[in-house]
This record gives sequence, structure tokens and C-alpha cells, in this order.
Amino acid sequence: MTDEIPDIPAYMLQMAESIRKTAVLLAKVETSAFFDRMLTAKRVYVAGAGRSGIIARAFALRMLHLGYDVYVVGETITPALKPGDTLVVFSGSGETQSVESICETVRELGGSVCLITASSDSRMSRIADCVVNLGDLTGYYRGDHSTYEVRQVTGQYRSVSSAFAPLGTLFETLALVFSDAVISALMVAKKEEEGELQRRLTNME
Amino acid sequence: MTDEIPDIPAYMLQMAESIRKTAVLLAKVETSAFFDRMLTAKRVYVAGAGRSGIIARAFALRMLHLGYDVYVVGETITPALKPGDTLVVFSGSGETQSVESICETVRELGGSVCLITASSDSRMSRIADCVVNLGDLTGYYRGDHSTYEVRQVTGQYRSVSSAFAPLGTLFETLALVFSDAVISALMVAKKEEEGELQRRLTNME
Amino acid sequence: MTDEIPDIPAYMLQMAESIRKTAVLLAKVETSAFFDRMLTAKRVYVAGAGRSGIIARAFALRMLHLGYDVYVVGETITPALKPGDTLVVFSGSGETQSVESICETVRELGGSVCLITASSDSRMSRIADCVVNLGDLTGYYRGDHSTYEVRQVTGQYRSVSSAFAPLGTLFETLALVFSDAVISALMVAKKEEEGELQRRLTNME
Amino acid sequence: MTDEIPDIPAYMLQMAESIRKTAVLLAKVETSAFFDRMLTAKRVYVAGAGRSGIIARAFALRMLHLGYDVYVVGETITPALKPGDTLVVFSGSGETQSVESICETVRELGGSVCLITASSDSRMSRIADCVVNLGDLTGYYRGDHSTYEVRQVTGQYRSVSSAFAPLGTLFETLALVFSDAVISALMVAKKEEEGELQRRLTNME
Repeated sequence: MTDEIPDIPAYMLQMAESIRKTAVLLAKVETSAFFDRMLTAKRVYVAGAGRSGIIARAFALRMLHLGYDVYVVGETITPALKPGDTLVVFSGSGETQSVESICETVRELGGSVCLITASSDSRMSRIADCVVNLGDLTGYYRGDHSTYEVRQVTGQYRSVSSAFAPLGTLFETLALVFSDAVISALMVAKKEEEGELQRRLTNME
Repeated sequence: MTDEIPDIPAYMLQMAESIRKTAVLLAKVETSAFFDRMLTAKRVYVAGAGRSGIIARAFALRMLHLGYDVYVVGETITPALKPGDTLVVFSGSGETQSVESICETVRELGGSVCLITASSDSRMSRIADCVVNLGDLTGYYRGDHSTYEVRQVTGQYRSVSSAFAPLGTLFETLALVFSDAVISALMVAKKEEEGELQRRLTNME
Repeated sequence: MTDEIPDIPAYMLQMAESIRKTAVLLAKVETSAFFDRMLTAKRVYVAGAGRSGIIARAFALRMLHLGYDVYVVGETITPALKPGDTLVVFSGSGETQSVESICETVRELGGSVCLITASSDSRMSRIADCVVNLGDLTGYYRGDHSTYEVRQVTGQYRSVSSAFAPLGTLFETLALVFSDAVISALMVAKKEEEGELQRRLTNME
Repeated sequence: MTDEIPDIPAYMLQMAESIRKTAVLLAKVETSAFFDRMLTAKRVYVAGAGRSGIIARAFALRMLHLGYDVYVVGETITPALKPGDTLVVFSGSGETQSVESICETVRELGGSVCLITASSDSRMSRIADCVVNLGDLTGYYRGDHSTYEVRQVTGQYRSVSSAFAPLGTLFETLALVFSDAVISALMVAKKEEEGELQRRLTNME
């Protein structure tokens, strides 16, 4: 690469290294708790704002493939949550107001809340039954309490203010890789039922 | 981790290693060509089916943050494409029929097509002006010519049939990490305009 | 209204009159057949392109409120269709190719297809188990065989070419009013279960 | 129709009559003000929750066909609002909290707010620059201050609690028919530019 052309592979190597470090430092007690909840869950809701919401959708789609009843909060079709249902929230800061409201409501309804985050302490982490912290980026998110929709129209996107290595991107990638690893683990744990999955999901002769 | 609990960090380390290998092997001529097109593009459309479409949305959102006019094919609001516009397609196989139709139409309209893929040769790669191949997974995708919508209702999701290390997941993660690296590179290349971006995107006093 | 300002209420009165005429001319055998299928359906999928797809979503949302398992084809979360499931398609022309493919697949999978349309004869009407024709606009749609996604990027929207009284709008409004009337009828027919619906849908104390 | 089968055409005739009455009673000063704002607007944002949001999308799609830059708040791609931009909000009650926050933000940013509603007085009507009241359903909406997302997970959908003639449906249909009438009026008012529209929107030879 010449000086003029920014080094795209170098950014990818940085990300690979961040994933490696995160994997090594992951708290086993947190990942096991989240894995156990997913293993026993029946109906799973996912939520998140902006790119975190996009990652939430990617996770939801794989959970559907695994045979779960899964819903995305905010999409056209989302039935009422019942006691025993589980909400999985993706929020780096754990402070986005509109998503926090959803967490509170789920708890009031008797559902449980799992938070995938990048902050050791947040308003959502105090509400959640189960927290997986993918790395402490708390300082970065400090002071962000507005709703996503408001930030959307105001253009207050974090990624731009954080120069060339946007931390939002880091969280979102870690969240994708972590949640896909959970999917792989669920596939292994449920392997005896794979014929069943296959039959349910492939119905074209 | 005990035997009973699948090793989530191990899956993350595998993914980190796949990203590392992909970064090292990336063809510089391909990434430079794609980077140059993004640098000079004005209006960018993105498309993709299923999880690839989700990654396409994540890329679109960051391009918006950078000040591009960007649209997601298939969303409610998508204006007519004009000559000179650029379509960025995410497709591991390069063969998904409904997405291929979009590529053909864009070429007929005088637009250019950039393909992010995992196949060295495909129907879309023969249509595209610019191809970035993130790793040859051609064998895996062989024989997949149906539209995504049809696969959606039939349940023929590739991830399930490919057991515990679903290759679709590999492509999607590589595509996210690669496209975010391009975003970072674009931010650097346009750094003199960052005040401008800031002013355009942050309009709440 | 002065000459300069187009007469908005007059357009609304025209639409009211079109709805009135359609209601009077509706074929009882068609509406009864559709109503019966909805009354006995368990899992309902909806599909449609463009504004017809928007009306399909509005219908899906009310079906969810009534307690149905309902899914929108093309949204993030759509499980595999099973024999006995019902697809409700909204298509004025009955010829939109991508939607027709979905109909064919549903039939192959053992599901049934209900078509809400404005054409007396179309490729979809020949596939469907049940057709409700809201008025014969066939001439208008003649020759439209392309996929919606392709029309989206090419800008070949019918509404613009059909001058100031766009027939697409007429079908969409009729489809909304008809499908809401079906919802009202379903609420009446299931009235003994309303306490049940209330309990299922309102779980916040 | 027999006693057993609810009378679907009768519901449609009721709706036609409601549209007729609304058209006759529409305040000319309100419709003219809204029409004038749409005629001169450049960039238009739309917002709404639930089915009102679906109607907002249908309006947005037609505005796009007319050549406007139009965005749906809450979709993947929504750029920052600038002074002079216009938000069109669809809210029967005028009280949905998450939508109200968007209105407030738009006003703070120097944008104008047009409200399509069914309440003579509401929190949003006090914020809006321009209000079109399609009929006073205030009593029905009284006491509804929660965010839509929260109502979505709690299942507190108004349509179910309002028995067999749901007023939400009435507002949504009136809003669709009114906003389509505005589209027709805009097409007439801009008729000298129709060749221009045609050229911009139909770029497939």
C-alpha cells in the first residue's frame, strides 16, 4: 500500500486482534449464564438501536434458524411479551433511553432481560438479569442518554465524532462475533436434535 | 470450560483467525479498486439478501454518516437509480437470483456494480464492474440459484445444513469487518473534510 | 376552493364513492370464501410489493392483534411455511413476478394462497386457492410482468404514468378498507373469545 | 348475507360514509396550509407509530414518486434534518410519546412540523406549525401517553379494546385517503413538470 491509500487490511488486522483479546478476557460466568438462558429459552425478543439493532436482527435470524420463536421489537409484527419470555438487548452504552424503556417494561411483565454491552455499569445493566460485558468502553459512551430516534434526526452519531477508529464499530463487531459464537455453541449443545431442525426448516421437497 | 459447555471464546478465536488470514490474503488490486469507487461515488445503493442484506444495511448506515446519499434496495424509500450511481452488493455465493436481477438492471441503467463476495466466479461477478473476493467459498454455495424470498418461505437456510461452523456466518463477518475497514479508510482519506461532516451531521446545538 | 388550489375534499369524495361502489358489487361467494379461510387459519403469512406490501403489513398487524400467528414475507423474521399455513397476497395486477414466485412456492409446500386483487384473470389468480377481486382494473396493469425490486431501481412506478387519478392508489385503498372490514367481521365472529384476546394482548397491569 | 356471516360490505359502506363526512367537514384553512407546505417543501420526513407509521410510509412512497427527497424516521437510512426541512407526522391521538420527542427535536433544529391527527388538542398539536384534524376522536385516545414500543411489548393495542369498530382503523383510513388526495392535488398543481417527473422516474429504456 502506498501512502495515499489507507491500509484496509491493517484495519482488519486490528479488528481481528480486538476480537482475540475480547475472547481471552471474556468472563466465563457471564457467557455461561447467557448461554444457559438461551439454551432454555422458548420465546426470544431482541432489541437495539441503530447498528446495534442491525446486529440484533442478525442474531434473531440465526435463532429463528435454530427453531426459536423470535421477534424483533419495533418491527411490524411483534406479539405481546409473556412472563418467562426473554429479551436480548444489544447496547454498547447500556444507556439508550428508548431501549432502556423496553427493558423496564419487560421486567414489569415478568420477562427476563439479557444485555450484551460494552459498559461495566449502566442503567440497563442494573435492570438486566444477565449481562455480558464485551469490554469496558464506558468512558466513550459517557453522557449519552438521548433516544436513538432523536439522535437519528439530529445527526448525533457517535461514529463520526470518534475519528477514524470508531468505538461503536468495535462493539458492534464484537457483538456479532460473540452472538454467532453463542449460536455455534447452541447448535453443538442441541446436536441431537439437528435432524429435527432440518425437518422443520427444510420443507421443500 | 467443561466438556458440557461448548467453548464460546474458542469460536471467537477461530473467527479472529479467519479475519486475520483474509486480511493478509486480500488482493490489493481489488480492495484499491473498490476503495477508489467509494471515494468518488456520490449516490450509493446497497443490496443483499438475508444476513448479507443486514450487513449491507450496516454499511449503508456508516456511509450515511460519512455524508453519502445512500439507499437500501427493497426498503420503503428508494429513488430511481441514475447513470453514474453505484450499487454495492453483498452476496457470498454471487448467485442469489433476486439480487442478480438488481445487478443486471443497474448495469442497464448506466450504473456501476461493486460486488463483495466469497466466490471466485459467479453470475454476479461476471456482471459486476468491481469485485472484492473475501475468500473462496465457491464449493459451499454450489447449486444455490433460488431467490432469497423463496428460500425464506421454504426454510432452506444454508446455515443449518452446514452444521456447527456455518460458512454463511464466516462471509457475513468478513464482509462486516472489511466494509468497516473501508469506512475507516474513507474517513482518513477525507480527513480534511471532517469539520464539514461534523457540521452536517451534528445540527443539534 | 379557488381555481388555483386543487380540491382535496373532492378527491376524498371520489374515493368514498369508489369504495361504496366496490362494496355493493363485491362477489359474496368470494368474500365468504376468504372470510372462512381467515376464520379457520392458524398461521398466516402476508406478502405484497410496494404500497400493496404496506397495506399487507397493516392487515398483518391487525391479525396479530386478533391473536393469529402472522408473518410478513421479506421481513427479518419469517419462519418456514408449513402445510396448512395460509398466504394472503395483495397484488392489484396479480402479475408481479417476485410475488408470484412466493405464491408458487407456498402451493408446492402445501400451503394455501388467498389473493386480494383488481384483475379478473392473472397468473396469480390461476395459482390461488381463493381470490377476492375488488374491481377489474386489468387493462391498467396490462404488460406489467417485472419484479417490484427491478421497478424500484428503474423508477417505473405506475402511479406517475397514470396521471392525476392513479389506479394503484384506488386498489390500495380498496384493499385496506376491505381487509379492515374482514378484521371487523372476524372480531364479531370470534366475539365470545374477546376476553381471551384481551388477556393475551394486555399483560401490563 | 346470512346471520352467521358478518356483513363485510356493510363495514365498507360505513367506512365510505365516514370518508364522505370527513371530506365535507374538512377545515379548508387547514388543508390549504398543509397543501401549501407540501407544494414548497424540498426535503420531507415522515413519522408515525404502528399502523399510523404504515400510512406514513405509504405517503412517503408517493412523495418520492413526485420527486421529493423523503425519509422515514426510524428506517435504516435517515440523514440529519436541516433547518427548513419538514416533518409530516401521523398520530390520531397526537400524544404518542416517542413521536412527540421527534416533533420537539425537529422544531429545535429549525424544521417545521405538520401533524395529521384526529384530536382537536394534544401535545403534538401545540408543537406543530400546521395541523390537519380529520375528526375529533379525542375522547377515545384520552389517557394514552406511553411510547409505541412499550405498547408493542405490553400488547396494549387500542384496536382490540375498542370492540368491533376500532377507531384507530377509522383514523388510519382517513389519513390514507386524505394524504392520497393531497398527492393527487400536488400532481395537478405541478402538472407542467410531469414530463420532468417522468424522465426522472423512468430511466429504463
